Amino acid sequence: MDKLFVVKIGGALIDDEELLDQFLDQFSQIKEKKILVHGGGKLATDLADKLGVEQKLVNGRRITDKETLDIVAMVYAGGINKNIVAKLQQKKCKAIGFSGADANLIKAKKREHAEIDFGFVGDIEKKSVNNKLISKLIKLELVPVFSAITHDKKGNLFNTNADTIASVIAQALSKKYDVELLYCFDKEGVLENVNDPDSVIKSVSSEDFSTLKEEGKLHKGILPKLENALGAIKNNVNKVFLIKETQLKNHIENHHGGTEICL
Amino acid sequence: MDKLFVVKIGGALIDDEELLDQFLDQFSQIKEKKILVHGGGKLATDLADKLGVEQKLVNGRRITDKETLDIVAMVYAGGINKNIVAKLQQKKCKAIGFSGADANLIKAKKREHAEIDFGFVGDIEKKSVNNKLISKLIKLELVPVFSAITHDKKGNLFNTNADTIASVIAQALSKKYDVELLYCFDKEGVLENVNDPDSVIKSVSSEDFSTLKEEGKLHKGILPKLENALGAIKNNVNKVFLIKETQLKNHIENHHGGTEICL
Repeated sequence: MDKLFVVKIGGALIDDEELLDQFLDQFSQIKEKKILVHGGGKLATDLADKLGVEQKLVNGRRITDKETLDIVAMVYAGGINKNIVAKLQQKKCKAIGFSGADANLIKAKKREHAEIDFGFVGDIEKKSVNNKLISKLIKLELVPVFSAITHDKKGNLFNTNADTIASVIAQALSKKYDVELLYCFDKEGVLENVNDPDSVIKSVSSEDFSTLKEEGKLHKGILPKLENALGAIKNNVNKVFLIKETQLKNHIENHHGGTEICL
Repeated sequence: MDKLFVVKIGGALIDDEELLDQFLDQFSQIKEKKILVHGGGKLATDLADKLGVEQKLVNGRRITDKETLDIVAMVYAGGINKNIVAKLQQKKCKAIGFSGADANLIKAKKREHAEIDFGFVGDIEKKSVNNKLISKLIKLELVPVFSAITHDKKGNLFNTNADTIASVIAQALSKKYDVELLYCFDKEGVLENVNDPDSVIKSVSSEDFSTLKEEGKLHKGILPKLENALGAIKNNVNKVFLIKETQLKNHIENHHGGTEICL
């Protein structure tokens, strides 16, 4: 099976033009087949603020109402996605940008919850992904770049967690490829002590995850990332790592650094 | 050669949700291969107003500065494009949305002008279009939906006239397809008397165009449409029509209505 890297980047990187450019340089140099998944960053929140669209919270959970969805679709699938694609094209990477609505690549279900209506939030699983068409696009030597927007095939767009999108794409494509899923973020990996970059935990299994969670050692942001990473490794993704975004090239070429997620 | 329809829709249609839905119904029912190109509508102007981004004019010509480009890229390639794609998917049309940056589908050159710097405005011609890849996507039974955003392969996005995009795509794909280019708008066709919908001019040649222009019979909005339509017919596009947007199905099934553009 051919090797395929599924690489996820988040908001902090996208908000930093210089860091993003350095990252895209490293990403474009990956010789193997590859897919990029990007989150949103502060741009959507900033735009919502400027337009006076308030963030709605119900029981402390964020709601995506129609106004917020419109902003998020514009910013993620338009502004951010097309800028990343244009920059990758400059670096001779044959990037092609997508939302999940495009070619029905990711079909989501509106989130169901007994007490809270989350609005336009879409949940997805492995079978939501049109892996056949993505494979065909990869065979055309294209590099898919996914924004965190999905749809329900009933005409609605949805906001979907980018970590989850990366995980289910990696799962769905593991049928045809030897997939390595890389969550890139601003830390060296999962840290034993969040203030000490040298305290990287080399590997985290399901059991380790439960223990770390109970001990309160996982800060809020890393929890969903680890859950999605574990979901991938449980669903036949060959390798899953959490790495520092500046270390992408070093990780791929020298198998160096980061936290490996294990069964 | 297979028949291919290249269909252009404009702002007024996009701003009217119900009319757009009816149009997309008709478009999705076209049995032949097809491409949709859409303009922008008032959404970008409204957003710019809300954000306090002023329209810049130099010598009466509109300039696309960086702030305006950012808005236009979000609205056209994100908001409008993804909503159209999601609606077409609902109607079982295998739509896939693009900007010109995606897969380097349309590479533009920054507009050069002796006196005016138009900013992020991209000019294109037949050879700007990656017709080979578009053909491959069409062979995968996909229906490309283009927003009016292009790029220069140097990392910059550009604002490009949607009528021109439709024209050059039709020209580039005429190598492989029997292309019919349809400019859909809110009039029955080119009208002898703009207030009389029954005064449709059945056909307009280059010569007719010059005469009508001299006689002052062409209102401002229709001029660029006709110039692009004539550009297409001069560059091997088999058929070119200006039709009323509600008449798309009737035109295709019954060869009825509209103004045909001739050599």
